[in-house]
Amino acid sequence: MDVSDVLRMNGGNGDYSYSNNSLLQRKVISMTKPIIDDALTNLYSAMNFPKTLIMADLGCSSGPNTLLVVSELVNSIDKIRLKLGNGESPEIQIYLNDLPHNDFNNIFLSVSKFQKNLASQLVANSSSSCYVSGVPGSFYTRLFLRKSLHFVYSSYSLMWLSQVPKMMNTNKGNIYMSTTSPPSVIKAYREQFQSDFLTFLKCRAEEMVSGGRMVLTILGRQSDDPCSKECCYVWDLLAASLNDMIAEGLIEEEKLDSFNIPQYTPSPKEVSNGVEKEGSFVIDCLQVTEVNWDACTDSNHSLSEEDEQGYNMGKCMRAVAEPLVLSHFGESVVEEVFKRYTNNIKISMSKEKAKLVNVTVAMTRKG
Amino acid sequence: MDVSDVLRMNGGNGDYSYSNNSLLQRKVISMTKPIIDDALTNLYSAMNFPKTLIMADLGCSSGPNTLLVVSELVNSIDKIRLKLGNGESPEIQIYLNDLPHNDFNNIFLSVSKFQKNLASQLVANSSSSCYVSGVPGSFYTRLFLRKSLHFVYSSYSLMWLSQVPKMMNTNKGNIYMSTTSPPSVIKAYREQFQSDFLTFLKCRAEEMVSGGRMVLTILGRQSDDPCSKECCYVWDLLAASLNDMIAEGLIEEEKLDSFNIPQYTPSPKEVSNGVEKEGSFVIDCLQVTEVNWDACTDSNHSLSEEDEQGYNMGKCMRAVAEPLVLSHFGESVVEEVFKRYTNNIKISMSKEKAKLVNVTVAMTRKG
Repeated sequence: MDVSDVLRMNGGNGDYSYSNNSLLQRKVISMTKPIIDDALTNLYSAMNFPKTLIMADLGCSSGPNTLLVVSELVNSIDKIRLKLGNGESPEIQIYLNDLPHNDFNNIFLSVSKFQKNLASQLVANSSSSCYVSGVPGSFYTRLFLRKSLHFVYSSYSLMWLSQVPKMMNTNKGNIYMSTTSPPSVIKAYREQFQSDFLTFLKCRAEEMVSGGRMVLTILGRQSDDPCSKECCYVWDLLAASLNDMIAEGLIEEEKLDSFNIPQYTPSPKEVSNGVEKEGSFVIDCLQVTEVNWDACTDSNHSLSEEDEQGYNMGKCMRAVAEPLVLSHFGESVVEEVFKRYTNNIKISMSKEKAKLVNVTVAMTRKG
Repeated sequence: MDVSDVLRMNGGNGDYSYSNNSLLQRKVISMTKPIIDDALTNLYSAMNFPKTLIMADLGCSSGPNTLLVVSELVNSIDKIRLKLGNGESPEIQIYLNDLPHNDFNNIFLSVSKFQKNLASQLVANSSSSCYVSGVPGSFYTRLFLRKSLHFVYSSYSLMWLSQVPKMMNTNKGNIYMSTTSPPSVIKAYREQFQSDFLTFLKCRAEEMVSGGRMVLTILGRQSDDPCSKECCYVWDLLAASLNDMIAEGLIEEEKLDSFNIPQYTPSPKEVSNGVEKEGSFVIDCLQVTEVNWDACTDSNHSLSEEDEQGYNMGKCMRAVAEPLVLSHFGESVVEEVFKRYTNNIKISMSKEKAKLVNVTVAMTRKG
């Protein structure tokens, strides 16, 4: 499996689309806003009222969150500009990057309306122009000209690996790191993350200007243990559904043996170690936050029973994992897999309050 | 009708897709290559071996021609670099622009394969990297940061107007300028082109660096008469098909009254006047070329009977005009319209050798 061909959020605008099931990711974006604002303020001051600002959102996906991020960035710059003495509005270039299978057409159809709305949101006399362009490709490769970026942002993307780790032993019965995984599997996952994260930082170090800022939010964990429940439980529940279907003869056991999620949820220590090892960046801030699974449910809806929340988290995970499951197990079982997975999530949420852990790191490109 | 919502080449990879019916446009691209090479050579020398080069293809469409243009540009730069003394390979950023309804997803899926192939085509020891990004929006608006572009290219796009000209009189029985059009219709078309071309040049003047080069190829005419057969005949044949269907009661006459093609095919004099009037550019070269309608037929195919060529030109025009016809007349008549149109083209091609006229202009942004 070539991850870059298979990994993508569910496209379109249907019931299981990422577009309609990305409230949790939206919540995370708003939680990290203070860190982004700090980074942008420091960048803007250091650049001494820049006339142009070039930014990139890596792993932008396709849905309301994509242009929400752009809007937050442009609005922040506008407020900072006023606070720091009302210089001329900079022109802003925003690059939206994701893998080539991402639905860029969907984003692009919203851009011109977005640009018009943006103009009306900004403070009076502001003439900020924002130019949006799409960049297809893996962020584990170079994507931009050398020394061309002032600000890089990525939320909920860097836990995705460039490939499924190459394993010496079968990760029997599991689809991710788990307490029952062989140590060699854990090691393979950890090393794949370390190698990918190093590549990512090297590429960005070439592309960013001295003094440029980067803010990354990665789905991670608090614990030093990579098999910690906080990060593995959500995949354990999918593995349980698949194992049930094997027991019933609906899926072949060999199929499961060769299926592993190309993801790694790092600890804050692993993230800071990675940055220090690569050496081009100084860490300005490292923060861990938590978000409840029920953040998938819109609080404006009065549908807050446990069932509804489990159903929503199920849809949320389906929007993320369906392309992977579909490409490996085939179309015939997809509905059943996600029916069972959603049910497992419901049961689990009725018993305990599960959380996802986010590691956010802000850093500056050394001079 | 909002032209930017309707104007696009037929998407996908089907029988009537632009992707499979753009040989004529490809031929035009290769015909103008010497002018592009000259412009790039002058640019490269003037920039004194640049480390980065930023280029844009405006109205890139979606199909084999899109990345063909990118490939030609990068290969040209590589050859020029060697010829002028073998400096370091520059990193090249290419922006591909078209209206938001263009099928960017289709382009993006080919980009990474294209980048790999490109590396193997370039001369030994060349390490040119080419970064591709997509920019949705009308080129009659600002699309890029100020002073950010070194080279701008556009082929067979600028004859498309930003809107159907506002007409005081009905262009009875016609869908484009024609010898039977009222003078006010001709005037409305001419003024729309002048206004759009001025806007285009003003936007590009802001976006390009001093000394930046621009090469534009526009479907045009030799004659001073805007109703000259060389540019209007191809639309006359579509109008004839629609009029036949009105006579047979298949289309309402009022429908045709309100349908006009948002295109203007300028003379070289109109193009140079436009550039001089705007004032930011010096014209380096102005060239008129002709291409036979049968350039739609691949010369490698041995299907060179008149019928086949008419059929191919019919498909070529369908790839270009179907979205406009579809949105105005509805799905129920589209097949019949293009069946008749193709037949008219066949008959015409069996009687005479029709040609399209291209106006190519190369210019430099003043310092």
